Amino acid sequence: MAKVVTLGEIMLRLSSPDHSRLVQSKQFDVCYGGGEANVAVSLAHYGHDAYFISKVPNNEIGESALSALRAENVNVDFVARGGDRLGIYFLESGSSMRPSKVIYDRANSAISTAKLSDFQILKALKGADVFHFSGITPALSNKAVMLVRKICKMAKQKGILVSCDLNFRKKLWTKEQARKIMVPLMEYVDICIGNEEDADNCLGFRPNADITAGKTDAEGYKRIFMEMAKKFKFKYVATTLRESYSASHNGWKALLYDGKTFYESKHYDISPIVDRVGAGDSFSAGLIHGLLTYKDKQKALEFATAASALKHTIPGDFNQVSIQEVEALMNGDCSGRVAR
Amino acid sequence: MAKVVTLGEIMLRLSSPDHSRLVQSKQFDVCYGGGEANVAVSLAHYGHDAYFISKVPNNEIGESALSALRAENVNVDFVARGGDRLGIYFLESGSSMRPSKVIYDRANSAISTAKLSDFQILKALKGADVFHFSGITPALSNKAVMLVRKICKMAKQKGILVSCDLNFRKKLWTKEQARKIMVPLMEYVDICIGNEEDADNCLGFRPNADITAGKTDAEGYKRIFMEMAKKFKFKYVATTLRESYSASHNGWKALLYDGKTFYESKHYDISPIVDRVGAGDSFSAGLIHGLLTYKDKQKALEFATAASALKHTIPGDFNQVSIQEVEALMNGDCSGRVAR
Amino acid sequence: MAKVVTLGEIMLRLSSPDHSRLVQSKQFDVCYGGGEANVAVSLAHYGHDAYFISKVPNNEIGESALSALRAENVNVDFVARGGDRLGIYFLESGSSMRPSKVIYDRANSAISTAKLSDFQILKALKGADVFHFSGITPALSNKAVMLVRKICKMAKQKGILVSCDLNFRKKLWTKEQARKIMVPLMEYVDICIGNEEDADNCLGFRPNADITAGKTDAEGYKRIFMEMAKKFKFKYVATTLRESYSASHNGWKALLYDGKTFYESKHYDISPIVDRVGAGDSFSAGLIHGLLTYKDKQKALEFATAASALKHTIPGDFNQVSIQEVEALMNGDCSGRVAR
Amino acid sequence: MAKVVTLGEIMLRLSSPDHSRLVQSKQFDVCYGGGEANVAVSLAHYGHDAYFISKVPNNEIGESALSALRAENVNVDFVARGGDRLGIYFLESGSSMRPSKVIYDRANSAISTAKLSDFQILKALKGADVFHFSGITPALSNKAVMLVRKICKMAKQKGILVSCDLNFRKKLWTKEQARKIMVPLMEYVDICIGNEEDADNCLGFRPNADITAGKTDAEGYKRIFMEMAKKFKFKYVATTLRESYSASHNGWKALLYDGKTFYESKHYDISPIVDRVGAGDSFSAGLIHGLLTYKDKQKALEFATAASALKHTIPGDFNQVSIQEVEALMNGDCSGRVAR
Amino acid sequence: MAKVVTLGEIMLRLSSPDHSRLVQSKQFDVCYGGGEANVAVSLAHYGHDAYFISKVPNNEIGESALSALRAENVNVDFVARGGDRLGIYFLESGSSMRPSKVIYDRANSAISTAKLSDFQILKALKGADVFHFSGITPALSNKAVMLVRKICKMAKQKGILVSCDLNFRKKLWTKEQARKIMVPLMEYVDICIGNEEDADNCLGFRPNADITAGKTDAEGYKRIFMEMAKKFKFKYVATTLRESYSASHNGWKALLYDGKTFYESKHYDISPIVDRVGAGDSFSAGLIHGLLTYKDKQKALEFATAASALKHTIPGDFNQVSIQEVEALMNGDCSGRVAR
Amino acid sequence: MAKVVTLGEIMLRLSSPDHSRLVQSKQFDVCYGGGEANVAVSLAHYGHDAYFISKVPNNEIGESALSALRAENVNVDFVARGGDRLGIYFLESGSSMRPSKVIYDRANSAISTAKLSDFQILKALKGADVFHFSGITPALSNKAVMLVRKICKMAKQKGILVSCDLNFRKKLWTKEQARKIMVPLMEYVDICIGNEEDADNCLGFRPNADITAGKTDAEGYKRIFMEMAKKFKFKYVATTLRESYSASHNGWKALLYDGKTFYESKHYDISPIVDRVGAGDSFSAGLIHGLLTYKDKQKALEFATAASALKHTIPGDFNQVSIQEVEALMNGDCSGRVAR
Repeated sequence: MAKVVTLGEIMLRLSSPDHSRLVQSKQFDVCYGGGEANVAVSLAHYGHDAYFISKVPNNEIGESALSALRAENVNVDFVARGGDRLGIYFLESGSSMRPSKVIYDRANSAISTAKLSDFQILKALKGADVFHFSGITPALSNKAVMLVRKICKMAKQKGILVSCDLNFRKKLWTKEQARKIMVPLMEYVDICIGNEEDADNCLGFRPNADITAGKTDAEGYKRIFMEMAKKFKFKYVATTLRESYSASHNGWKALLYDGKTFYESKHYDISPIVDRVGAGDSFSAGLIHGLLTYKDKQKALEFATAASALKHTIPGDFNQVSIQEVEALMNGDCSGRVAR
Repeated sequence: MAKVVTLGEIMLRLSSPDHSRLVQSKQFDVCYGGGEANVAVSLAHYGHDAYFISKVPNNEIGESALSALRAENVNVDFVARGGDRLGIYFLESGSSMRPSKVIYDRANSAISTAKLSDFQILKALKGADVFHFSGITPALSNKAVMLVRKICKMAKQKGILVSCDLNFRKKLWTKEQARKIMVPLMEYVDICIGNEEDADNCLGFRPNADITAGKTDAEGYKRIFMEMAKKFKFKYVATTLRESYSASHNGWKALLYDGKTFYESKHYDISPIVDRVGAGDSFSAGLIHGLLTYKDKQKALEFATAASALKHTIPGDFNQVSIQEVEALMNGDCSGRVAR
Repeated sequence: MAKVVTLGEIMLRLSSPDHSRLVQSKQFDVCYGGGEANVAVSLAHYGHDAYFISKVPNNEIGESALSALRAENVNVDFVARGGDRLGIYFLESGSSMRPSKVIYDRANSAISTAKLSDFQILKALKGADVFHFSGITPALSNKAVMLVRKICKMAKQKGILVSCDLNFRKKLWTKEQARKIMVPLMEYVDICIGNEEDADNCLGFRPNADITAGKTDAEGYKRIFMEMAKKFKFKYVATTLRESYSASHNGWKALLYDGKTFYESKHYDISPIVDRVGAGDSFSAGLIHGLLTYKDKQKALEFATAASALKHTIPGDFNQVSIQEVEALMNGDCSGRVAR
Repeated sequence: MAKVVTLGEIMLRLSSPDHSRLVQSKQFDVCYGGGEANVAVSLAHYGHDAYFISKVPNNEIGESALSALRAENVNVDFVARGGDRLGIYFLESGSSMRPSKVIYDRANSAISTAKLSDFQILKALKGADVFHFSGITPALSNKAVMLVRKICKMAKQKGILVSCDLNFRKKLWTKEQARKIMVPLMEYVDICIGNEEDADNCLGFRPNADITAGKTDAEGYKRIFMEMAKKFKFKYVATTLRESYSASHNGWKALLYDGKTFYESKHYDISPIVDRVGAGDSFSAGLIHGLLTYKDKQKALEFATAASALKHTIPGDFNQVSIQEVEALMNGDCSGRVAR
Repeated sequence: MAKVVTLGEIMLRLSSPDHSRLVQSKQFDVCYGGGEANVAVSLAHYGHDAYFISKVPNNEIGESALSALRAENVNVDFVARGGDRLGIYFLESGSSMRPSKVIYDRANSAISTAKLSDFQILKALKGADVFHFSGITPALSNKAVMLVRKICKMAKQKGILVSCDLNFRKKLWTKEQARKIMVPLMEYVDICIGNEEDADNCLGFRPNADITAGKTDAEGYKRIFMEMAKKFKFKYVATTLRESYSASHNGWKALLYDGKTFYESKHYDISPIVDRVGAGDSFSAGLIHGLLTYKDKQKALEFATAASALKHTIPGDFNQVSIQEVEALMNGDCSGRVAR
Repeated sequence: MAKVVTLGEIMLRLSSPDHSRLVQSKQFDVCYGGGEANVAVSLAHYGHDAYFISKVPNNEIGESALSALRAENVNVDFVARGGDRLGIYFLESGSSMRPSKVIYDRANSAISTAKLSDFQILKALKGADVFHFSGITPALSNKAVMLVRKICKMAKQKGILVSCDLNFRKKLWTKEQARKIMVPLMEYVDICIGNEEDADNCLGFRPNADITAGKTDAEGYKRIFMEMAKKFKFKYVATTLRESYSASHNGWKALLYDGKTFYESKHYDISPIVDRVGAGDSFSAGLIHGLLTYKDKQKALEFATAASALKHTIPGDFNQVSIQEVEALMNGDCSGRVAR
């Protein structure tokens, strides 16, 4: 299997149980997650040597985050210790027409203050096949921009495949700031993943998609995927398409363009949704695994789509599913019959 | 904002968690609620000075009920202490075709034994804009009938808008008893809220609605709303219309008549239902807020309907939602997309 | 009411709460269940004298299983003590397209090592109206085969109605092994219950049903039911028909053949499913009760189908519902309206 | 083993978990208990045919109480259904110098309204060896007084040993009321159990014990035990002696007088206390078992004392311990070493 | 009763349940607390008009903190909204020789960035009898120093009694920084509360106490109390004396000096400790109440000591006890007998 | 730091929460543990490269055990997959005079059926400094005996220090069987750990210790330690000495003999005990770490004793403590003061 290195932030997630509101909760469910960490977890479950690089505070909360990653078989040997705090996010799980709500409390996290010399990057990248990051990381701070840029450059020089999930977060930066940072980074990127909002906000490409109507039109993406691939020399451009009927019921499919062909996955009807946080990350991981594993690009996309559809049924940020489970679903068994 | 005074019973609610049956439960979820208390909570969340008048026993259970109301910013300064017990109700949460079940253990509650001199009513009503009660309160006891009648009269004399949710409870009284008490009370009422069963059982007005078929016909209400408004000089008559597909899936909309025009709200499809107890109360509160806030009666109704639709997604009796959340829904965002 | 005796295994069930994966769980929900025990529980709830015969280890886990049965009013006076362990099964509750998963850890359970002399069988069968077992019990061990065979014979000789749920378990034996044991046992059986897979695997009868398409065709069963009834002289042959749309949403109905007429029940749409384990057992119990109670076979079938539809909404193996609740559903109230 | 019949009230107990205050609790732990029911449970655990006679409301809460008793192997066949409600008590578990707090909400319970014709008493008493009741039952209502009196008389006539735990409850009646009712009942009683306050409040006998000092003096009881035995012709008089150092730490021993000899048990130092509710009942049951089982009265007393010491370590009202466990403790193993 | 105004920070507290380590916890218990907020809660429970002034972020976490205070009847009308975050602290509850552990994540909290114009201070102080703050607040930031200084000055000018709990926190500032800020503030202070470390670190007064030996010597305080009272013109100087035998077992008493007489309270032996966080705050509140209520200074001190001893038995930061409960303890009932 | 390899069984542990009895529990707390696995966890926490070798079934339960070990930073790369099941043990947590109870359900576990070729032992042992096993492993099965013997031999040949915790389990084998297997194994052992019962049951050495009196006499061990060291050429012999006052309160110290000098550790008084399971394993790990780290043998022993004393305060089998925490305790801070 492959060696995949990811870089980013891992946060403490505190969520209200059983669809209660945050103000009602006398207990918060505790887990840990973050875009790139979630990708590493999925890839570890698929049998890859998955590394996560970050910086966490030298206290019990930082160690708890690493313990959570180790439990999933992610290598955290290159995580630095220091800084003041682990970022936190609060999650209130919605239901029916009440949306889920995320409150970020991530300013001044350890990773946002990290610099290259905090890490043994050369050792971490040695023998790596893929380097993955998301648009969240450079959005954290100027230091983080520099860190990402330098590592991307090193990865590119070493011939490592670079994957990026654009993942625009409007609470972290503006469209203008994002474009200024993200567009130059694209020269290092081979696999670019992002939905309609990400492509627009980070790179300035706007698909013909009527989002407010809750509909997604695969056709609308073809044009911009071709343009993006052309401009940035992406090997792959991909997106998920979510149809939001309610907080409990979504449609889900995905698109992939490899510079020549457009692939469109099967469509999944997901109801009820247990936890949709991390679905995008599970798609990125599924796509990396798929492209590393299957010659058939359609299969690679189907793996990524099935994996990320399954994520909606699993509590927490991490997509704790096996290759066997994803393949059973992508091969057509959606019946949910009891596996005895 | 307005000062709204409500009068009624607050009960200890004990519910079995996670759709278990009462007999299976080694723990009961604890909250507090009651028709008029629930209305006060909603109005406090919308920024009004919301008062709840009641009587609770002078023990930890009584104080716990008041603590729960204070947490929601409801003023309980006029709640009397005394009597023997707080009413209790047990709630078993159903699912799919299994209905939820309510077992009342409310006889001889403190409020059912209260008399006017227990309260500083003049002080409580001073400067009030609205007085709200429900048909549950006079159903509790003869003393409660007298209490409600006197306070209604005082409110009317002071020019306070009087709102009544008919709320027939067959475990508390018969149709005949209800009509005997409720019909004379209507002379004080300005806003009358009640569904098809309430209108019939409490006032003797029967809409053309085929309830057993699980369908509701807005047209069927027009006639009786006109008759009710005419007979009792109601300023407003309103009802919610529930379509019960299953314990987990309901349709929801509402009607309002202002003596001139019939308003019909948007229709909501609610699935899954988290907790439908208190939905009617949240509609009453939403309507009071809407009528106090919007010139446009249609908007007032849409606010009430959206607020009460949201209630179905929140555990407990109280509708812990903000004006912003209700308005987002009434303005059309039912997609349930994560609010980051 | 009737005296019904059941024989089989009861297991400790350990399930991950709230749709979490087993690996995520720091707590397992604990209950006890097993095919024939579940049947006895249902029948006790319907007012019958229900007996469960088994063997459990002489430790706290064995006693806990019996305590659980006693709580449901099942008579366990004829349960033997001894052997090494209580069988265990782990249950991971699925959601949407993620299937539920069962892991059995039942080898070498006390009941699998039991022999006839462990029990006071004559006393247990005295005055019994029905004896019920399932295909799981003879699949446990050779000793269990002998035990079942002898008791079936005794029951038959005493004129006790013998009911068998074929219940093929591929983790316990092969199709060939099952047929070798089950076919000869059928000579004692009056009521034979089993779905399409059971009939094929245990007895070699294959309906015309396209299972993989998630569809079930009542017509396809008619032929084999007639053949089965003819070959084995069954008084009744019955099956449930499950349509698996997802782990959270199933269709449900059932068929009965009494040697003369085919009966097809109403169809239920179950969404969301709370816990489908034990649904087949609740059908068997409902059918036994129905046949003992109603002259009208259609009603007997409707009772069994409604009872087992309700099971899907109740956590645990046991179908803790009353005759009143089942009859309300079979008589058409699927609205799930709150029962106050 | 013996047949023991008990009569009294069973209540729903709602307790705040983990030493939290009632007002802090979003969940209450649920169990069921009551003086005589607790005695029946202990005796069932010791292998006796234990019957509990009571009346419970015909709803899920009433049935839950019976299910809890059945789980402990108590026979509830003679429990009547009807009345309005099951009595409730709230329990806040103290710690260190903060006392535990009990709030009763038991007025108008089903059993308090029961009359003799509600029960098949002759059938229930048939073949009984012991009839047990406590002073709580006649304190519930005048009807309950009559019920207890008649059944005591019947038991006495049939030569059944009558056991009474005086159990004075100041929230239920005054000292004067208690004496008026309890003194005449003593003519039927063979085994009289009660601590210093009970003996005084119910019967007017005051030991030389300095309770406020938290000390108990066995000598002080000798005199009144002799007088009580003489006056009421008791076969046995017994009491427990509790030393209250704090809510978490108590001393515990007991005294027995059989008309000839005074027996004083070993002393136990209990720290920490898990749940002391029901300790007195577990002593009564232990004494009944001891007197039925051991010729040596000292052993009978030691069994009762050890059993009731163990009760302090078990959550809930019921003393779920086996004869083996009690005997191990009474025979001297207080080391608490892990039993592997 | 009195009007008492407090100023400071309220934090979200996240604690691992049941003595588990933070890294083991899949759920954190949630409550809210902070030095001055805790004082306000106690005073509200004693019937005073208790106000808490602070600034919280305009999100659900900030509102949850206010909801928690309202539930305790604390007036939060003068709390400002804004800033980025609510401070957080993690609490791991120790046991026996394993100490409890607190991890602060409070940098950049809303209150640390507040300025005087955020509040309607004149209105808040109007009619106030006491103003209370702790040394934690000026330690938060320079802005907080200015805020505290200005409000102290205003309070002093209005003749309001000013109370200060020195409360040195070494994670927030050094001894040198603390002295530089705290010493000048003392000119406004009437009641000065602080243990041996606080007096030294904040003011430079060192008692003759051998802390490392786990012993506390009341005599050692006399000298410095006299000196402190003389230098700063304190009306009262007070301290608690904790003997730390283990994380589960402490001794507890307190000292008060009123410029003339030294008072020493009773000694409490606390075992087991449920939650000692907030014990110091509960002492401050008890002392304020005591001095406002009792003429006898010894009684005032005993009230404060008993109240704070009780705090150790209650989960959370808030000391949810009534005057009755405190007085029962200070009057000598430490037996922990069940209050029925 | 060192590389330490351990070999043995890891089990699923199911425990009743909050001192409830197993029969009372509707939920079991889930963790994983086993003698040698627990040692590996401790050593990983102290910074060593800790390896655990075992065999687990190829299902979710087996993987969950490994996930739990990975979370603690234990290397499980050499764990084989296969076999039928993971061993299970049930734990009921006692209190005061009620002992904790362990029920084993470990027969036929995967590791008990393992053979040498299941593992890449040479690779696992490469560069190892210490190999540790316990007497439990050879007690599992004949295959396990052979496995242990071969690996011990290999370790010895490679000059790896071999550590053995005798750990006699009477449910697994008799004294005679144990001695027959264990005595010959001692030729490979350098560090022999075992209390008085282990030394007797496994090796036939009986100290002069009066266990039944709950007392332990360090002197009694001197003689047998000298004899054992002489006979088996042990480099170190060690034991813990537990004083069992109750299930909640123990005394704890330890002894070490290095062939020349007897070392006796400080004594700890532990109250209350949170979880004493794994205390012996934490001592073994602490001793290994101590001997590897400190020149001073007394310090090595003090580290082991302090570490294992701390274990009693931590839920679960694993001793999740850091070097800093252990050293703080061994250096004398037993005060349990809050670490802020």
